[in-house]
Amino acid sequence: MSGFWDEHPGLARQLEDVRQAIRDSAQSDDSDVQASVSQLLESNGKMLRPAFVILASQFGAPPADRITRIAAAIEMLHMATLAHDDIIDGAALRRGVATLHALRGPRTAVLVGDWLFASCFSMVADFAAVENSRALSQMVARICGSEVSQSADRHRVSTSVRRYLRRIAGKTAALFALSFHVGAHESGCPPEMCSRLRRLGYCLGMGFQIIDDILDFEGPGADTGKPTGRDLAEGIYTIPTILGLKNDDGRLAAALSRRPRSRRSLSRTAALIVERGGIARARELAERYTERSRREISHLPCGQPRAALEAVTEKLLHRTR
Amino acid sequence: MSGFWDEHPGLARQLEDVRQAIRDSAQSDDSDVQASVSQLLESNGKMLRPAFVILASQFGAPPADRITRIAAAIEMLHMATLAHDDIIDGAALRRGVATLHALRGPRTAVLVGDWLFASCFSMVADFAAVENSRALSQMVARICGSEVSQSADRHRVSTSVRRYLRRIAGKTAALFALSFHVGAHESGCPPEMCSRLRRLGYCLGMGFQIIDDILDFEGPGADTGKPTGRDLAEGIYTIPTILGLKNDDGRLAAALSRRPRSRRSLSRTAALIVERGGIARARELAERYTERSRREISHLPCGQPRAALEAVTEKLLHRTR
Repeated sequence: MSGFWDEHPGLARQLEDVRQAIRDSAQSDDSDVQASVSQLLESNGKMLRPAFVILASQFGAPPADRITRIAAAIEMLHMATLAHDDIIDGAALRRGVATLHALRGPRTAVLVGDWLFASCFSMVADFAAVENSRALSQMVARICGSEVSQSADRHRVSTSVRRYLRRIAGKTAALFALSFHVGAHESGCPPEMCSRLRRLGYCLGMGFQIIDDILDFEGPGADTGKPTGRDLAEGIYTIPTILGLKNDDGRLAAALSRRPRSRRSLSRTAALIVERGGIARARELAERYTERSRREISHLPCGQPRAALEAVTEKLLHRTR
Repeated sequence: MSGFWDEHPGLARQLEDVRQAIRDSAQSDDSDVQASVSQLLESNGKMLRPAFVILASQFGAPPADRITRIAAAIEMLHMATLAHDDIIDGAALRRGVATLHALRGPRTAVLVGDWLFASCFSMVADFAAVENSRALSQMVARICGSEVSQSADRHRVSTSVRRYLRRIAGKTAALFALSFHVGAHESGCPPEMCSRLRRLGYCLGMGFQIIDDILDFEGPGADTGKPTGRDLAEGIYTIPTILGLKNDDGRLAAALSRRPRSRRSLSRTAALIVERGGIARARELAERYTERSRREISHLPCGQPRAALEAVTEKLLHRTR
């Protein structure tokens, strides 16, 4: 565990139950599935999505066991997308840990991802209300559609802010929103509170992804002050690039139009994005979504769950990894 | 269309509706998803699984539109596994048509496969009874688990008949059985008829997969009399190999233990499998499952759907591709 939830020991314990539920569901299966699932769990970071299911459920009367299973299902969905993303990117490491794809080959990575997908749907069908089960599968289709469109966007310099926001809404914010909504709905929160928590999830997700895309520039190289830009290297133009282009004097567009790129020219392009205010303006945008999150939270009833949401909102904005 | 259903024009028309439902569900999405789905549909063969949903539903009072959607969902699931299998196998062609993976790269193949998975679950959640939706997701998890175990079995000469049968039960027969069951159940067939149709699906699926594995030996090279054995080349020991080993004088085991193999030595190994009666005994096994299928069919009420099932059962046993 990354220690992200150290200040919330009750939640950290519940997340341990979620991990156990995921391990249990792999138990009956092939030992290769078990080993792969354990490995994915180990390289797993903050477990934000299941934490959101649990936190949102605390605004109602949470049926503990069911919430644990639903939180597990949502994390399995996320794990499935990670397993498949790593194949797509050919990534050998994720958060410094060897990827499934690198350790066990693409065959196992594809199949274990599929297994996680199916097990997620199976768990949701068993433990969640029918409408939540429907919402989940619709949303997964939306996430995949949005990923295909990101594929299509590669090296398209004209990528607009609106298109970027739509893409991350479909990819990250939708799953955050659903995590909040499902948690609230399953614990019997009234409709307006479900909607508020869903909106909160959406704003947190938008802010989270923007920060993620900024960190991709400042990356592990942040300590050395050298921007990295893995997305840039892959021809994916995220918000710092797009906002840099809005304030371009022509040099950035010219730099982006030259491919394939050496590490040095990538680093020059990234520096140009910083110079044209791309990072600073992206930070402002993330701050705007965070402000909207704070506003949604301020309307929630006071208490421990609200305090936890306030804390995590700030932590996500100011994180460096 | 392969012309497989030419003698059943009513069914062929309904399968056209199924194709259209699949195209429609991709409509709202990205144009890349649409193009990929169309392409997968074009290279699609017999559409057995949706045909089974429709045929089984005809033993009850089928709600036509819902059955079309459920049949579409099950075909999308099958298409998803094909898209992902092609990545795993690195296959450039499937039934002589370029694979998605070859045409659009692994990224699109992974994502379109995931999109198909999710859309399948979404459609089932919208149109099928909750218990069918649960059965579907459990079964997909089972299929993936069984594929992972096939991975683990590669180059393991001791592979037993029992293990092989369990593997194809999880992979092919389970989806055939589910197709029949869901069709019967959704059109209000009584429980004992649902069970009978499910058993029929299981036996048809077992026979189908055994024939498939035999055809992999006789393959496209059947005309020239030269066995091919793509599975063998990949180190997957299917039933002809396993049954050949049961009657081995030591030469086959020795041949299988030598890797990597040239095309010539593969062809010699395949000839040895034929010589040790592997193909003939596999055909007997397929015939036994077909006989069980015939018996299940004989207990169904007479009429057009039963006649169609009788015809397709024989056609599947005697097919050459």
